[in-house]
Amino acid sequence: MRSSASLYAAIDLGSNSFHMLVVREVAGSIQVLARIKRKVRLAAGLDSENMLSDEAMQRGWQCLRLFSERLQDIPREQIRVVATATLRIAKNAQQFIAQAEEILGRPVQVISGEEEARLIYQGVAHTTGGSAQRLVVDIGGGSTELAAGKGATADVLHSLPMGCVTWLERYFSDRNLSQENFDRAGSAAREMILPIADSLKQHGWQICVGASGTVQALQEIMVAQGMDERITLKKLLQMRQRAIQCGKLEELEIDGLTLERALVFPSGLSILIAIFETLGIESMTLSGGALREGLVYGMLDLPVEQDIRARTIRNIQRRYQLDIEQAERVSLLAESFVLQLSKTWPIDSRSAELLHWACLLHEVGLSVDFKQSTQHAAYLIRNLDLPGFTPAQKKLLAALLQNQTGTLDMQVLNQQNAVPQDIAHRLCRILRLAIIFASRRRDDTMPLLNLKAEGDTLHLVLPAGWLHAHPLRAENLHQESLWQSYVHWTLLVEEIE
Amino acid sequence: MRSSASLYAAIDLGSNSFHMLVVREVAGSIQVLARIKRKVRLAAGLDSENMLSDEAMQRGWQCLRLFSERLQDIPREQIRVVATATLRIAKNAQQFIAQAEEILGRPVQVISGEEEARLIYQGVAHTTGGSAQRLVVDIGGGSTELAAGKGATADVLHSLPMGCVTWLERYFSDRNLSQENFDRAGSAAREMILPIADSLKQHGWQICVGASGTVQALQEIMVAQGMDERITLKKLLQMRQRAIQCGKLEELEIDGLTLERALVFPSGLSILIAIFETLGIESMTLSGGALREGLVYGMLDLPVEQDIRARTIRNIQRRYQLDIEQAERVSLLAESFVLQLSKTWPIDSRSAELLHWACLLHEVGLSVDFKQSTQHAAYLIRNLDLPGFTPAQKKLLAALLQNQTGTLDMQVLNQQNAVPQDIAHRLCRILRLAIIFASRRRDDTMPLLNLKAEGDTLHLVLPAGWLHAHPLRAENLHQESLWQSYVHWTLLVEEIE
Repeated sequence: MRSSASLYAAIDLGSNSFHMLVVREVAGSIQVLARIKRKVRLAAGLDSENMLSDEAMQRGWQCLRLFSERLQDIPREQIRVVATATLRIAKNAQQFIAQAEEILGRPVQVISGEEEARLIYQGVAHTTGGSAQRLVVDIGGGSTELAAGKGATADVLHSLPMGCVTWLERYFSDRNLSQENFDRAGSAAREMILPIADSLKQHGWQICVGASGTVQALQEIMVAQGMDERITLKKLLQMRQRAIQCGKLEELEIDGLTLERALVFPSGLSILIAIFETLGIESMTLSGGALREGLVYGMLDLPVEQDIRARTIRNIQRRYQLDIEQAERVSLLAESFVLQLSKTWPIDSRSAELLHWACLLHEVGLSVDFKQSTQHAAYLIRNLDLPGFTPAQKKLLAALLQNQTGTLDMQVLNQQNAVPQDIAHRLCRILRLAIIFASRRRDDTMPLLNLKAEGDTLHLVLPAGWLHAHPLRAENLHQESLWQSYVHWTLLVEEIE
Repeated sequence: MRSSASLYAAIDLGSNSFHMLVVREVAGSIQVLARIKRKVRLAAGLDSENMLSDEAMQRGWQCLRLFSERLQDIPREQIRVVATATLRIAKNAQQFIAQAEEILGRPVQVISGEEEARLIYQGVAHTTGGSAQRLVVDIGGGSTELAAGKGATADVLHSLPMGCVTWLERYFSDRNLSQENFDRAGSAAREMILPIADSLKQHGWQICVGASGTVQALQEIMVAQGMDERITLKKLLQMRQRAIQCGKLEELEIDGLTLERALVFPSGLSILIAIFETLGIESMTLSGGALREGLVYGMLDLPVEQDIRARTIRNIQRRYQLDIEQAERVSLLAESFVLQLSKTWPIDSRSAELLHWACLLHEVGLSVDFKQSTQHAAYLIRNLDLPGFTPAQKKLLAALLQNQTGTLDMQVLNQQNAVPQDIAHRLCRILRLAIIFASRRRDDTMPLLNLKAEGDTLHLVLPAGWLHAHPLRAENLHQESLWQSYVHWTLLVEEIE
């Protein structure tokens, strides 16, 4: 495997920070090798005439010298450098860019707001789950991009000249987190969005994804506070109320909000609330990537599928050389159990889908070792970059895989917040039974079994004589009902008389 | 990937336990899918006439019915069933075997002691590191196998009718851990070994490997007590002294000795001491596999190399799709550093070899994620089945990989006991520098640098102007000397004037 031939780099000269992403292509997926970020604060160097100061330019060039050392080892055609909002509007941008190109040895493209929105949409499409129509929102330092599309294609693209840095300077310059400041910031944002709202609403969407630092901060706050990961207007308004209670920007304290993100959090929040209100968004989740990922995937030219999660799962199955046939067998069996139980244990389609992914990945821990393989599976799923899966979904998958066999760790199972607790319990019990019955890795050894649920009790009815004829699985089932009983679940195993 | 076509099973009907090992072949390496063990205590069912009792046979058949369910899904030619000591001597063995074959649907081979020794040697050769000539010792319940050979070929094979179960019944039947009982057990063992000692000594060996439960118990005790993992006569005699102090078998308590192994530990120990004394063994390490692994690898027909560790490393590099060129680059650089420092920081060849392996695997954590990749690397190395590496070596590798960059965790680094602490520190510092200088993944970007050591201080001398021309690595080196200073190491970076 040639070291450098498979390397790609994307550099984004943003209004607040410059970023470099270096990745390696490995068998159709990307592996991140480096993420370098420097707070260059280019926007802060713009004067009222939109001229960049010498100092700001020096800061930028200094950062690029750092990037350039790394860049020299990457094939030239596998590097893309783009500049956004601040360099779109700076009158002396060309001066900065000429020197930047000399340092980097590569052209710097100042991209339009629409192109930025398109690239962000691409980055989201390649890294974020859920099929069908989506709305993508990215609140940057100096601009906000909105894109609506379907699958890999963005149909409506907008870029608005408002960002969390500009809004901070314009509406929170007195550092007061007052209702009044929030109101002014909110109305100004709504005014910006109103003209484009119709075109987005007409396109419509089934899911809404946020890609900015503001959304990331919200995600971190919700995780820290044990909330589920869907951002709703209600939660945003609560967050604004909390900020107002803090009074001053310097005294802003919210569980899970990091110092790094605090400064531009109120301004970003006011923009996000305006977007929710104006577009009537019900809920939003965090994307797995944005502009830089869009650049990298654009160079790699990988196909985008209906649901990116299918590609992710296939990649993991291939990379960890899972027994795909067995994974499908367990999944089919689990699906048939869900169906059999649908009257008394209804499981919604989103949860059933998560059970499906869990089945497809359940043996991933074996790639590390047979010993403690369920622990290994949970470790891998928690830590792997799984494009398309949200943090909460990863946590649930890890909890299910850790509890796929052996003693049950209810703490792990109850710490997830992707689905309600009782649903997680059902998924877990169904997964465990499917694994036991499929353990012989052949389709023709599965009994015709009947599964019924009554409250927390599962009745498993097998053909007459089946247990005696299958002593290993009989032993496994016996052990399984013991394990379930330890956590006060009842599994009754009977034979037809 | 077909589910069952790549499955193999090995069953061993031992004197104390029956074992089944089910593996999957994955790209030239084996992945364990199941290890099932049942304490059948067949030997206990032998009467003074060497007739197996009905009860013992029933226990055996019951266990085989369990195994057979799993076996039915494995291609018939990929199953091997062997029986050892007890079934070699039982007069009514044929009665047991006929029924066993009917249950399993496969022939049961009663193998000779020599064949058992050969298979054990094979299992060791495929799973245990170190090149050249080796002596293999396996103390079973009813027999002890000794084999000497080179690489994949065993040249001298012996099987002695003594085991930890038979010696327990013969010399510790009063449950007293007295000097006298140990003396009697030891002399009897020495008498057994003496006639074959010459043929083994004439063959000679460079390394000695133990494959039995006794050696495993010793390994666990030494790990629990923080000792290094080499078994020496001195340690064995200390262990015997400790056992004698406990007085009674029921009161045997040694840190790290599990209940499961305690019963046959003193008898096994007395045999092992006799082997050490009679053959003049200096030190012994635990093997990675034995009889069952020999059976499985025999069916798979994989080549045995000079040093099995090279195959293991290649497998990991391929499975985790590591950048092999980069791994070699870091390794070569590290090697040149070791050479440059050889006068003031001497590093023995065994330790240098471990540094080499660490370099070849250092990026394995990236396969999980860029974030916390050093933690992932350490997790994988700690938990992966790495044929050829001992537990202590794995622990050192994991410690080095965890400390390959970023803040240093001295606790992790000092908990290993594969090499002396100061050597581990040197290996770590050399690895870190090699990674920094090779970070551009190209051979032509490495400076001509000069490395000197004085006590704990490393002097790094670079060509004039190099730091200014390479700002990223200059920053990395600056950060590195900070990190090293936090743990009171000095790294001085200078340029030639």
